[in-house]
Amino acid sequence: MTTTATSSPYQRLIELTQEGSLIGATGSILGWDHETMMPEGGLEYRSRQMAQLARLGHEMRTASEISDLLESSAEECADDPARSANIREIRRDYEQATRLPSELVEEFARASSIGQHEWAAARKADDFEHFRPHLEKLIELNRRKADCLGVPEGGERWDALADTYEPGMRAADVAEVFTPLRDSLASLMAELNDGPSTPSNRFNEAVVPIESQEAFVREVARTLGFDFSRGRLDRSVHPFCGGSHCNDVRMTTRFQDTEVNDALGSTMHETGHGLYEQGLPFEHVGTPLGEAISLGIHESQSRMWENQVGRSREFWTWCGPIARKMLGKDVADLSDDELYQGANIVRPGFIRVEADEATYNLHIMIRFELERGMMSGDLEARDIPSEWNRMYKSYLGLDVPNHANGCLQDVHWSMGAIGYFPTYTLGNLYCAQFFETACEQVPGMVAGFEKGEFAPLLDWLRSNIHCHGRRYGAAELCQRITGKPLSAQPLLNYLEGKLRPLHGI
Amino acid sequence: MTTTATSSPYQRLIELTQEGSLIGATGSILGWDHETMMPEGGLEYRSRQMAQLARLGHEMRTASEISDLLESSAEECADDPARSANIREIRRDYEQATRLPSELVEEFARASSIGQHEWAAARKADDFEHFRPHLEKLIELNRRKADCLGVPEGGERWDALADTYEPGMRAADVAEVFTPLRDSLASLMAELNDGPSTPSNRFNEAVVPIESQEAFVREVARTLGFDFSRGRLDRSVHPFCGGSHCNDVRMTTRFQDTEVNDALGSTMHETGHGLYEQGLPFEHVGTPLGEAISLGIHESQSRMWENQVGRSREFWTWCGPIARKMLGKDVADLSDDELYQGANIVRPGFIRVEADEATYNLHIMIRFELERGMMSGDLEARDIPSEWNRMYKSYLGLDVPNHANGCLQDVHWSMGAIGYFPTYTLGNLYCAQFFETACEQVPGMVAGFEKGEFAPLLDWLRSNIHCHGRRYGAAELCQRITGKPLSAQPLLNYLEGKLRPLHGI
Repeated sequence: MTTTATSSPYQRLIELTQEGSLIGATGSILGWDHETMMPEGGLEYRSRQMAQLARLGHEMRTASEISDLLESSAEECADDPARSANIREIRRDYEQATRLPSELVEEFARASSIGQHEWAAARKADDFEHFRPHLEKLIELNRRKADCLGVPEGGERWDALADTYEPGMRAADVAEVFTPLRDSLASLMAELNDGPSTPSNRFNEAVVPIESQEAFVREVARTLGFDFSRGRLDRSVHPFCGGSHCNDVRMTTRFQDTEVNDALGSTMHETGHGLYEQGLPFEHVGTPLGEAISLGIHESQSRMWENQVGRSREFWTWCGPIARKMLGKDVADLSDDELYQGANIVRPGFIRVEADEATYNLHIMIRFELERGMMSGDLEARDIPSEWNRMYKSYLGLDVPNHANGCLQDVHWSMGAIGYFPTYTLGNLYCAQFFETACEQVPGMVAGFEKGEFAPLLDWLRSNIHCHGRRYGAAELCQRITGKPLSAQPLLNYLEGKLRPLHGI
Repeated sequence: MTTTATSSPYQRLIELTQEGSLIGATGSILGWDHETMMPEGGLEYRSRQMAQLARLGHEMRTASEISDLLESSAEECADDPARSANIREIRRDYEQATRLPSELVEEFARASSIGQHEWAAARKADDFEHFRPHLEKLIELNRRKADCLGVPEGGERWDALADTYEPGMRAADVAEVFTPLRDSLASLMAELNDGPSTPSNRFNEAVVPIESQEAFVREVARTLGFDFSRGRLDRSVHPFCGGSHCNDVRMTTRFQDTEVNDALGSTMHETGHGLYEQGLPFEHVGTPLGEAISLGIHESQSRMWENQVGRSREFWTWCGPIARKMLGKDVADLSDDELYQGANIVRPGFIRVEADEATYNLHIMIRFELERGMMSGDLEARDIPSEWNRMYKSYLGLDVPNHANGCLQDVHWSMGAIGYFPTYTLGNLYCAQFFETACEQVPGMVAGFEKGEFAPLLDWLRSNIHCHGRRYGAAELCQRITGKPLSAQPLLNYLEGKLRPLHGI
């Protein structure tokens, strides 16, 4: 990088920020390669490459020059709201990167690496005690991490951690939305359970060759608007959306010959992430104005295409004929209604990642309440299994059979990620509230799904959300777009409005 | 990277060297991705990523700490021949990296980038004058580059450039081997031309579905010994072998439905490169003892599997049945002899990359003589077309029809690469000399090809060449293995021994 004598403080700040992003983007491509392309022999050397990139990126993001430039460019750009927003977010990233002592970062990285390894062993052996000491360590490190990051005034420790995933998210605010949602979902589940009919499950019993599934989900992703000249779709064990920037978005999906609905749902979910990434402005690449706001807002995009679009009756009017044509004999005689119903089975289960739209959020709430206790000190690692099982009984009416299908099912805590889970439900909430507004503002939008017309929705998302990058925070964006703060009501309205009729209510 | 108080100068030198290699390996994966996977939209940002990695790598490779460590570790390791060799080669790399002023490096990079672009336009328009000013610039920069690198005592400017591709290669030595080879090849060509019969061309007229070709060449690569758990084979416009290190080797090939022989030859060629890379010792990864010696030695490996193996009669005894089974109806009725003959068509042409084993080297010699003149000052850019055409008439008996099929056909000079071409023919020469020795030392080796037994040859290459990394220079290695300095005789013996019978002589 060359410093030119003529560049202003803001220009120089942007240069430095882009340098840090550039190395991060390289790491991201290597991460994608690791999951999709790398031969197994490459594992050891690849971890060295990733560690080097992480170190170089951290050095770039914490360069002391940035601190000085933040001051001088704030003055320079005081009258420019977009640039000021960029500076505000660069400052946020800088402070977060510099607040943690490097000893803690290293200890955390080590404990997280060991933790994941031991968690996998414990889960396999259904042995919580094997994992307990590692979880204790990770809880302790997270408490220290939260204290270094700084507990916000009037907030709690959990908030400091959650803020790294969802800027501004506080446990008290989350609880305020989650509690009514939990109660309403619980009574909705009871209501559906007693409903006079249940949706047809035939779609989920279909066996479909994987090549047919792949051609089918590609056709869907393309029609939704994913630009394959600026992205790819490959296979991986766990679907994800990565890549390096808006013009090179790499998403993945997975296939099993008895799980066409999973492949479709996963692909539409990742396509939602991918459309958000492709919609970020290239002119701001490598700076906050070219980045996604938060995990919650990202999830609002993936969920919208997966659920509000992909599980709508209108979608299946368009997609039904295509599915019957492309998915072979087991699907060829299913009606649009049967496909729609098969995409909307609601059934409480133990496993979060297999949960339906309605019960999914109950899984998240349990984790949120446990995390809050872990950070406040009300809950210790040893108490987690019994609390977990008690809450699954209370929220979902289920007797958890073992720890592998209980509190050992998720990787997150073993990685040291506390404060992450609620972003999934926040995503569902933002999604429903945004979608409700889009429906009001774009007449005929949902009816257009019947003809495979998804551009009106995508255009709305592009101009209301994607184009702004991190200019507005999540809460501010929600207020700007919907005129209201985040609430549980749109999600409840959506779920009740769809699921009651499907159960003959 | 952490400096530990206990590490010796040598250990620290190795750490620094490996850090520089690591970033280079990351660039190499991104380069592979660029050619095989990247969506077109990613181009602009990717070039920024590559430039950043190049800059970081250069900074690491030229760190002044290395200079001090070279001195102290040379003392430390004086009694250890392997470590001393490693230090010698690290010193070589360091000196080469530090000798060029960064202004020249940048000017060169710019001229090379523009040069390639303008060359492509000139080639398309068959307009040498369009390219001439850029070639003039690149010649001038190469003269300056050579002077910075340092012309070896008693040598010439070309030597300084060639040394960056083939350490120790000097124009005078090259000429000493090339001149008799040129004369002998010219008379061999005349002899073959007058021979009573010509090989059957039926194999080259076959149309084979690309999927069948791909399965076929994978089967061949696997049988030759390429380890797919430590490497991949993908498609790209121009076949190449890349990857990051011995346990992650990425090779590519290409397919056209009328060019199965090209796909096979390209795949076997890249497999030869890939086997060399996979044979380098992982314990020395990222240091010279874990790297290939030179372009010429690398080419000796690719050519051996492509030609000495893949164009042998014994190979086709094994491969014939597989080809007939896998390659569809156009190949199903070809005999082993017809397949063997089809792989050995000799026909002078204008285009280097389409040339056969025998005439290929004449294309290289023409370029070598022109380059030598460009660097000495005997030849200016404006004189190249007429000299080119004169030599094609003299060496190959051909009237060059236009510049696009003449002096504008290769990308190398437009990239500023002077001294590179001869490594191709050196590769052929080393290859023939090594193979002759392997045949003497491993009785029954070639006969084993008939049964698909290639491990004896691979084992011989592993223990005689691959395992040493850069411990020995090319000339020293040749002397150690074959007991003789490099000579044209083994290649001539090989070509005459095979091609005369194929032409009924």
